[in-house]
Amino acid sequence: MHGLIGSFSAHPGKRDELIALMTASLSDMPGCLSYVVAKDPQDADKLWITEVWDCADSHKASVHIPAVAETIRQAMPLIAAFGEHIVTQPVGGCGI
Amino acid sequence: MHGLIGSFSAHPGKRDELIALMTASLSDMPGCLSYVVAKDPQDADKLWITEVWDCADSHKASVHIPAVAETIRQAMPLIAAFGEHIVTQPVGGCGI
Repeated sequence: MHGLIGSFSAHPGKRDELIALMTASLSDMPGCLSYVVAKDPQDADKLWITEVWDCADSHKASVHIPAVAETIRQAMPLIAAFGEHIVTQPVGGCGI
Repeated sequence: MHGLIGSFSAHPGKRDELIALMTASLSDMPGCLSYVVAKDPQDADKLWITEVWDCADSHKASVHIPAVAETIRQAMPLIAAFGEHIVTQPVGGCGI
């Protein structure tokens, strides 16, 4: 499996709009086992994304899915800065 | 929802043993929506844990489940150091 833990910051006041965008187009991403969007309770602009994919290729391919590509296009202007970007190798658990 | 992103390091050579322990007792944790154990590909001793719970109380209560308490008891001697501990507020996604 292939995992990602990432964070980024929305422009002030834009986090909810970004969350709405990012959670609207998640229904059909082949190989996506988990994709969680979370607020950082310590920072009103910050978001965390944790992802689990069956393999890295599925993750790479996902950005070419039309609905995902459109979400990225709409989301980019709302993002002020990218933060953590941690690649992991999920090995087990529940909910995946 | 209540989320956690955490990391810790096993004593050298003990990561696989720790993973086996941590993934063996996850089947019955009320309120646990996702619990992913992942290796850090950059550090042979490091593990990442990402968790999503329905609420913080479910997470707190989980340590009193006998199987979980026993896992913690067995795991602690294998852990060399605790790293990141990030509390999040999951708001959506898939796989939860």
